[in-house]
Amino acid sequence: MPPSDPVNDANRVMAADKAAVSRALNLVEDKRSEAHDRVTELLASLKDAPKALGGHRVGLTGPPGVGKSTLASAVARAARARARTVGVVAVDPSSVQSGGSLLGDRVRMSFDPSDEGLFVRSLATAGEVGGLAYAANSAVRVLAAAYDMVMIETTGVGQSEIDIVHVADTVVLVIQPGSGDVLQFLKAGIMEIPDILVVNKADHDELARRAVADLRGALRTAHAVGASGREDGDWETPIIATSATKDTGIEELIDALDAHREHLEPTLAARRRQGEVQWALDLFTRKHGEHGVATLHGLAELTARAERELDEGETPLSLCERLSREYVATLRQTS
Amino acid sequence: MPPSDPVNDANRVMAADKAAVSRALNLVEDKRSEAHDRVTELLASLKDAPKALGGHRVGLTGPPGVGKSTLASAVARAARARARTVGVVAVDPSSVQSGGSLLGDRVRMSFDPSDEGLFVRSLATAGEVGGLAYAANSAVRVLAAAYDMVMIETTGVGQSEIDIVHVADTVVLVIQPGSGDVLQFLKAGIMEIPDILVVNKADHDELARRAVADLRGALRTAHAVGASGREDGDWETPIIATSATKDTGIEELIDALDAHREHLEPTLAARRRQGEVQWALDLFTRKHGEHGVATLHGLAELTARAERELDEGETPLSLCERLSREYVATLRQTS
Repeated sequence: MPPSDPVNDANRVMAADKAAVSRALNLVEDKRSEAHDRVTELLASLKDAPKALGGHRVGLTGPPGVGKSTLASAVARAARARARTVGVVAVDPSSVQSGGSLLGDRVRMSFDPSDEGLFVRSLATAGEVGGLAYAANSAVRVLAAAYDMVMIETTGVGQSEIDIVHVADTVVLVIQPGSGDVLQFLKAGIMEIPDILVVNKADHDELARRAVADLRGALRTAHAVGASGREDGDWETPIIATSATKDTGIEELIDALDAHREHLEPTLAARRRQGEVQWALDLFTRKHGEHGVATLHGLAELTARAERELDEGETPLSLCERLSREYVATLRQTS
Repeated sequence: MPPSDPVNDANRVMAADKAAVSRALNLVEDKRSEAHDRVTELLASLKDAPKALGGHRVGLTGPPGVGKSTLASAVARAARARARTVGVVAVDPSSVQSGGSLLGDRVRMSFDPSDEGLFVRSLATAGEVGGLAYAANSAVRVLAAAYDMVMIETTGVGQSEIDIVHVADTVVLVIQPGSGDVLQFLKAGIMEIPDILVVNKADHDELARRAVADLRGALRTAHAVGASGREDGDWETPIIATSATKDTGIEELIDALDAHREHLEPTLAARRRQGEVQWALDLFTRKHGEHGVATLHGLAELTARAERELDEGETPLSLCERLSREYVATLRQTS
């Protein structure tokens, strides 16, 4: 690896220099431990970005085949038309197994490569269940320092979408008319209530109307069974019918994203801090398992500590490293 | 805890003594470490059961609301009518959050409590993603020592159903007509191809015919994109339309289960051994994380070792304990 200058790299990322953003994401995807150290330094430098709240982090989730990529593409175009810069990161679980149909989707995501205000990257989750929390989490932080809006696209339903909550400000669940299984997950309270619901492929008025009505019913049932959502009652999840191919509903979706971002403003910093705490704990647990958590006095104690030390300027990655050294030292002392 | 006599307990479980089975499952659900030791002893004693291959372990999976519990209930009744004994374990993720709609499902599972040849238990996964591998895995081993057929019912789609593969001999995916989202997961290769596909709630001939045709198409696409399944080409996943409420298709499903069990016969012991290896590695990784795996020379080395030591009579739980002690000792030596 060439010698690094994290402050300079971070400054170029924050200036939305496409080559610098691209190099930063290469680093994020690099699994070698030298790369980890450099990601830690880079993210620490990004932390001090002048743009206090960074880009709006939007998670797009839902089953495969509902047209999330086409929708992301349409939203990105419309946001660019509003003179906003956009970064997109697609987390593609199927690319590992088959390179099949979802890759086809990816290709349908058509962007102008000469547009300096638009950046698109696909990340393979390399077969990791819940793999979003690692490379993708860092990738989102890089993009959010560079662009006004960051979309994270993941394929999931049920428990696999949990991770996106730790990294997205606004979670958008995308389904298509006839997505009865997703409605069942919502109704059963197995799936969290999203911030915004989109019925994509709503090309026919009648089908779209029925799908929106079904969703409204499902949300009512979900609330009735006590399903969890991140909002505390004063945000009502809007349901928006879109047709990414016919370009309808896209402006309405952007308006809803803006409304949610505005709604979040007073709590956004706290919410992101909570996501970082969770990320640090996930990293540590992944590295040292339940025994590591127990040795460092349990999850409640570790959570309180992560909150305190992140407030004092630690980053999730560096905190994880420090906890790791402490764990190993503790084991050695007790011999 | 009262003093234990694992050999006696195991003998009573193998004699399908309902009170003993019930006590064994209480032990399995107990999270205290004394209980862990006793589960280890119990499972080790069950290992030497005279019934060489134990009960047929059938996993029922699919989205909520498709009627898996009613189906399990109908299959259990029909199996009892064929003079087979049956154990059912339902893993219910929603019971943690809401105690809501799925609990309603559970109550609809009606069994004769005085029937000594039928045992039903619901396990809460306590919010653990992939929690199946722990208590449920032991529970299935207990029930398989006692009964001719064990059904494990889980709610999942996509990556959350992976675990069931490590514990079930035969995986049955249950959907209902109009389960387009599940079809998309299959087609995209994100979901493993099951051993048997059931279209439940097939009360109307026309809808059922169309659903079966859709599934056949989805399986073709799944094979074309190279989706994985556990079979190596010589088992063609049957698609069976059932109506648990009208009691149609149930005999056909039992025949398909028997056919799959017979098909598995030559490889069943190896497949279960593979599941135990995976279980031991999952347990160790959960306890000590990636650092534990790396310290004990990586996943390939650990897998080979687990295969060897399980062949020599170790159980997954005791192997995990031994690896754990070795890991901690290694850390101390290198100080």
